[in-house]
Amino acid sequence: MVNKSVQFNIPIDDIPKQWYNILPDLPTEFPPYIDPDDGKPSRLANLPKLFAGECLKQEFSEDSWIDIPEPVMDLYRQAGRPRPLFRALALEEKLGTPARLYYKSEFYSPTGSHKVNTALAQAYYAKQQGMERITTETGAGQWGTALAYACAVVGLDVTVYWVRAVHRWKKERLQLMKFYGADVHASPSPMTAAGKALYDKDPDDPGSLAIAISEGLEDALNDEKAVYTLGSVLNHVILHQTIIGLETQKQFELADDYPDIMFSCLGGGSNFGGFTIPFMGERLTKGKDIKFVAAQSEVSPNMQGEYAYDFGDHAGLTPMLKMMTLGHETRMEPIYGDGLRYHGASPILSLLRHEGYIDTVAYPKDEKHVFQNAQLFLRTEGFLPAPESAYGVCAAIDEAKRCKETGEEKVIAFNVSGHGFMDMYGYDKVLGLTKE
Amino acid sequence: MVNKSVQFNIPIDDIPKQWYNILPDLPTEFPPYIDPDDGKPSRLANLPKLFAGECLKQEFSEDSWIDIPEPVMDLYRQAGRPRPLFRALALEEKLGTPARLYYKSEFYSPTGSHKVNTALAQAYYAKQQGMERITTETGAGQWGTALAYACAVVGLDVTVYWVRAVHRWKKERLQLMKFYGADVHASPSPMTAAGKALYDKDPDDPGSLAIAISEGLEDALNDEKAVYTLGSVLNHVILHQTIIGLETQKQFELADDYPDIMFSCLGGGSNFGGFTIPFMGERLTKGKDIKFVAAQSEVSPNMQGEYAYDFGDHAGLTPMLKMMTLGHETRMEPIYGDGLRYHGASPILSLLRHEGYIDTVAYPKDEKHVFQNAQLFLRTEGFLPAPESAYGVCAAIDEAKRCKETGEEKVIAFNVSGHGFMDMYGYDKVLGLTKE
Repeated sequence: MVNKSVQFNIPIDDIPKQWYNILPDLPTEFPPYIDPDDGKPSRLANLPKLFAGECLKQEFSEDSWIDIPEPVMDLYRQAGRPRPLFRALALEEKLGTPARLYYKSEFYSPTGSHKVNTALAQAYYAKQQGMERITTETGAGQWGTALAYACAVVGLDVTVYWVRAVHRWKKERLQLMKFYGADVHASPSPMTAAGKALYDKDPDDPGSLAIAISEGLEDALNDEKAVYTLGSVLNHVILHQTIIGLETQKQFELADDYPDIMFSCLGGGSNFGGFTIPFMGERLTKGKDIKFVAAQSEVSPNMQGEYAYDFGDHAGLTPMLKMMTLGHETRMEPIYGDGLRYHGASPILSLLRHEGYIDTVAYPKDEKHVFQNAQLFLRTEGFLPAPESAYGVCAAIDEAKRCKETGEEKVIAFNVSGHGFMDMYGYDKVLGLTKE
Repeated sequence: MVNKSVQFNIPIDDIPKQWYNILPDLPTEFPPYIDPDDGKPSRLANLPKLFAGECLKQEFSEDSWIDIPEPVMDLYRQAGRPRPLFRALALEEKLGTPARLYYKSEFYSPTGSHKVNTALAQAYYAKQQGMERITTETGAGQWGTALAYACAVVGLDVTVYWVRAVHRWKKERLQLMKFYGADVHASPSPMTAAGKALYDKDPDDPGSLAIAISEGLEDALNDEKAVYTLGSVLNHVILHQTIIGLETQKQFELADDYPDIMFSCLGGGSNFGGFTIPFMGERLTKGKDIKFVAAQSEVSPNMQGEYAYDFGDHAGLTPMLKMMTLGHETRMEPIYGDGLRYHGASPILSLLRHEGYIDTVAYPKDEKHVFQNAQLFLRTEGFLPAPESAYGVCAAIDEAKRCKETGEEKVIAFNVSGHGFMDMYGYDKVLGLTKE
């Protein structure tokens, strides 16, 4: 029986109260993080100085379920959770597909993306531990914004090192971070030794994520009252994001339906992992018949890379993680879905990809097909996806079109991880919206 | 008993299924719209050619409750209704006020504002009547965006005449309207006789709302398959917006609380009316003890104007409506909360103001205090209000501060009618966020 309603949501009291940790359920053992054999000081030894203790504990936890602290539940409710699951009836009709399409609305968040789910948790744990400040780096800017927000509502200072090349032109995002009270520095900055060396040579140095990470790390290491945070890749980040998929499971119960296949975009993996991993758990432990497809760009198809130990950053400052990687020094051409440009995928998702549990599709760098499908979604369902989220939307629509050809009544689920109100420029450039 | 939860929401099935029409419950008779005595053709006679029949029927309906058509209910659900009511516990704590603050989250909408509530209804009625196109004008751009969205999902063409002075610099909003598929013209445009006369003289004419309205009206009058729409002021617009207040009433029941005083910004009145009128109805028919305050700018404090017959537009093309007005030819200085710059208030709200049921506060044109209070809200509750919505937020915070002085445990409700992701520029200018 198919419920024809367009929106499914659970009562506020039914928001999941635990995150799901897939580590104990993985099909093979999770490879430990290691130090490279380069004679330099141990990166592993630095971890406790860098991350909140609770986050580090979660990183390697063997518990399948981890309680969400009640203050974080309050923050989730304040941030508007639960977020509805929508049946995309209008899109289905437009496509003339026998498939049933459902999408999760993570764009309905204070800063407009799913990033807040882990930003709030990480800020809470830092505060609880007596920290006064968080440092981080940001590339596209979504993570910096989410952390600026989380630190404001939790009551922490935050220092963001932002790749100068992006800092320079994303004015509105900079204004928003500062509106929240964040201390934002174009990187390389004169604030750290790593940054100053480059800044002194050229104050207009465009910077890179590598340098920004170095600055964030150095800043946190030098301040006992500061911790460093990451917005993707690591296990505890994926853990916090499972709130997305756990909610989605309850909402599918209300819809009296269950996905055959799930799509979402994947850069480092926090959105893809958060959305799919609770369902992946059901496949692994209950034998559910469900597929997972990561939507990527051809400029950074890390899920098609090599499964090998690599650094998480370009400069080799992190421990080595076993991941699907293109190589930490790979140069990637710019695209408007900038948040997808990362050389490696989350170790958890990488293991699952290596074991054959995740498929992947990569779209051409001109982004035309991706943004055209995003427009189809916009004009039928009404919501404006972020350029990154557009990749997941696109892949789901492509699948629905295939179902039209084959006649399959497949249930397709996708996550719209963020909105694009601050990213119209890319859509305009690619689709020529305002060209006379 | 006060529930300490931070979010209150009703199940999807409990979204109100009727709009509330206050006309039969008004304390004095509603003054009819009239033609001016200027020898020109009747404006009243044009109304049936301009507006969808159902909207015109609603404009003067004597039914207290008007069924929301089931397809509009579907559209409301697709657009994410119901939208939560939040208890602003963090803001209360920051203020140290004994008041209890609640806010409604209309910013959680596909285009980011409450405007979609009437845009969807008006687009539906036009489509149902066999129309193929809608024309309208827009100033700040929120209404044009909402209508572009509504026409996309309902399946209608839409032509937007946009005051050139704004069209020129709000690039992202223009891109978004076009992404939805809207036909957007900087006004005065060469598309209409009214526009062409001015355009031919100066293709860079900055235009005005008056001229844009003339263009929208002329365009609709000359096309049998087109209707004209308005995003505020008129009774049927306020009617559609009552979904906000009706939902809020049910959510207050869940909170086991009831507002003593309600605040929201008021330009033409669609947001203020939609939020407060269901509560106003309870005051009028059930003797509820509740106050209402409209937050405005000193550049356009129409609720402090004269209660008199006036035109709805600057050029005198509409019938005359009895309204609180500053005079339809008044020039108003620019502010960043541009949507509040309108010379007259909704006739319904004007009558209620005249009869003493609505109070008003007007803030200085520098917007500093307003935006500072918006920042306080942002940093405690996490959400980014639109510059217009910031006025209602500001007035609620000022009241909460007064309660701190008097010790009153007042229940304060306000509506955050839209988000500011596309309006960071104004906040930056006024507060100097990115000034080095």
